[in-house]
Amino acid sequence: MKKINQRQVEFDCEDIFPKRWSPRSLSPEVTKEDLMKCFEAARWAPSSYNGQPWRFVYAINRTPAWDILKQIPNEFNQKWALNAGALVLTVSRKTFAYKNKPNIHYAHDTGAAWMSFALQAEMQGLYTHAMAGIEYEKAKELLKIPEDYEVLAMFAVGKMGSKDSLPQDLKDKEAPSQRKPVSEFTFEGVFQADKPEEKKDE
Amino acid sequence: MKKINQRQVEFDCEDIFPKRWSPRSLSPEVTKEDLMKCFEAARWAPSSYNGQPWRFVYAINRTPAWDILKQIPNEFNQKWALNAGALVLTVSRKTFAYKNKPNIHYAHDTGAAWMSFALQAEMQGLYTHAMAGIEYEKAKELLKIPEDYEVLAMFAVGKMGSKDSLPQDLKDKEAPSQRKPVSEFTFEGVFQADKPEEKKDE
Repeated sequence: MKKINQRQVEFDCEDIFPKRWSPRSLSPEVTKEDLMKCFEAARWAPSSYNGQPWRFVYAINRTPAWDILKQIPNEFNQKWALNAGALVLTVSRKTFAYKNKPNIHYAHDTGAAWMSFALQAEMQGLYTHAMAGIEYEKAKELLKIPEDYEVLAMFAVGKMGSKDSLPQDLKDKEAPSQRKPVSEFTFEGVFQADKPEEKKDE
Repeated sequence: MKKINQRQVEFDCEDIFPKRWSPRSLSPEVTKEDLMKCFEAARWAPSSYNGQPWRFVYAINRTPAWDILKQIPNEFNQKWALNAGALVLTVSRKTFAYKNKPNIHYAHDTGAAWMSFALQAEMQGLYTHAMAGIEYEKAKELLKIPEDYEVLAMFAVGKMGSKDSLPQDLKDKEAPSQRKPVSEFTFEGVFQADKPEEKKDE
């Protein structure tokens, strides 16, 4: 079976899935038009009752909006993400428009829209890298995000840059990550929890 | 700009995104090999600290596993979903393997894996339709899903079937759904909440 990006493919899916990965060495050539095509892909994601809870706040490097969004990655992520072409904050509405009822699927559905963005980016020759390490409270304050919305993540977008732009520790880690085998997360008609041993892993 | 599936595309993304939609008239020709390719696509989704929280419990129509999973869609969804080729329950681990620490991104990341599955299915000529309307507690009991996992959704997979398999009310609704314009969910450097008028919509 094929190997893509040093990733061994077990079952023959389309190449775009193992081809997409999350480098930190990003270069700043991203245009608004580039982003719009990716948002268009995200737009067509499915969602519970077609609620479309995803919201994206973006900034392109060296524009006024950048000065706001660049404050949101944490100290660790600022070391590499500020070289990217764009930063996008993923926000999600926690309620439906209809009577403001709670939407229990907002994070799941917003993750689906984010994945569509990342795959469209990949097909345009762009790379994305999502960050959990961001200042959530600061993002809410800076952007005046009301209580019925949640800040879920941030991601950087760029062309592939030079590894030399990275600090040494990140340069050493710069490679596509591996995954557990399909048999460890799919089950036919039964559910199997992870073995307790795995919980003790360091 | 192009129109695909009666969907007007605003920015020129790849066709697979507007092409993917969620019919209810599904036919039961799905093999385990078909599913495995889709799980392979899901496998390569990115996740916070590469935690890979997604788990999928599946059943193919007319197999012993089907008799378990077919009990999970609610009454409304049983009317159409039980004609499909496969049912897949989307489950997510809420903690990291590392010290069992809480993973705040489990639903977002599992949504990303689900989107990869749905797009791979589309590229194989299969259709998927996710359901929010399922018996969550029953699913947990039937499959003995422990507390550190959450049942997020279920989806049906199949080839395109005949509309005539659907009850009249669903037959009338069988069409790709529309989306809000890109300008309503993307913002440059500012955040804009939905207008309050929209919250009163019926």
